[in-house]
Amino acid sequence: MRVLLVGATGTIGREIDEALRHLAHDVVEVTRHTKPLSVDLTEPDSIRALYRAGGRFDAVICAAGEAKAGPLAQLTDADFEFSVRYKLMGQVNLVRLGLDHVTDGGCFTVTSGVLNRVPMPGASAYALVNGGLDGFVKAAALDAPRGIRINVVSPPWVTETLRALGRPTDEGLPAAVVARAYLQSLSGSQTGAVIEPVA
Amino acid sequence: MRVLLVGATGTIGREIDEALRHLAHDVVEVTRHTKPLSVDLTEPDSIRALYRAGGRFDAVICAAGEAKAGPLAQLTDADFEFSVRYKLMGQVNLVRLGLDHVTDGGCFTVTSGVLNRVPMPGASAYALVNGGLDGFVKAAALDAPRGIRINVVSPPWVTETLRALGRPTDEGLPAAVVARAYLQSLSGSQTGAVIEPVA
Repeated sequence: MRVLLVGATGTIGREIDEALRHLAHDVVEVTRHTKPLSVDLTEPDSIRALYRAGGRFDAVICAAGEAKAGPLAQLTDADFEFSVRYKLMGQVNLVRLGLDHVTDGGCFTVTSGVLNRVPMPGASAYALVNGGLDGFVKAAALDAPRGIRINVVSPPWVTETLRALGRPTDEGLPAAVVARAYLQSLSGSQTGAVIEPVA
Repeated sequence: MRVLLVGATGTIGREIDEALRHLAHDVVEVTRHTKPLSVDLTEPDSIRALYRAGGRFDAVICAAGEAKAGPLAQLTDADFEFSVRYKLMGQVNLVRLGLDHVTDGGCFTVTSGVLNRVPMPGASAYALVNGGLDGFVKAAALDAPRGIRINVVSPPWVTETLRALGRPTDEGLPAAVVARAYLQSLSGSQTGAVIEPVA
């Protein structure tokens, strides 16, 4: 399969990349800085340009997109706008604008996260974004043409991230384990699914 | 209690208004067109102006905010921007920007809806918005100061709306029944809750 992987250099993206290559998929890795193909997820026209130049894909996987963390009273208008424009609408637009650029029966897999299911202080923008992605995917899958499937992986905390933050790693899953959920989305028959990686 | 009710003229809002008045609450009804207090939920500065002029409230209830319906491939950038800016961020901002304007132990109640839980074709923008609101409230409640509570009511289809659309009303709940969920948010001790009205 020819797979567009956005966010191939992140903690999870690297493991997805390796797993896809191990299965001999043709992976087109794209970040904001790659050449000749790159993408700025915050700009719909950048996503359109990526698809115009990228040819047809059998699958699109996104493990990119950020949001802002901080106490509700301290997050600014700009913090929420950034979060919505980047991790939420960036990934939604990658699906919407890619519908005509994937093959029949193709598959989109985007990334939300645990914080709308298991909230914590300082995570209101993340929880908003993740909840929006989970909701979007469930309904969008019902509109997808030509047997195209649309799923979202909702990872828990990743062990490598917890370690980098100096936090206990008990609750985390290794990125390589999380990456398997993207393979599950790709090779299975699920659509409209919120896939929670398990050990 | 002094209650700010945004969207007092909608199908659900009218019933909330009546129920609050029946309980002898002091209801300040606000829409885009009321005087002297009005609000345009799509503009954070309009929300700021409402709170500056409105005094202190014991509770804020929002039953306003729209999104766009339509097949995923036909919804435009502008349709998603409208949906996010109005029903999603309009209500999120009503909470964020109102934190300093409610009394200790005050309560915010916003409105999402069934479509992220029970998706249907043509509802991807609605499901995004509703999921975002549900996620936001769960985490935002953990950050709320001074015992302030934050909940979201997630109504099913409303009988009156189904009837207006010429659709079967079996799955709907009457607006007056849905309104009771807002009273439950107001008078109970729940916070960070996604309240599903039941018959």
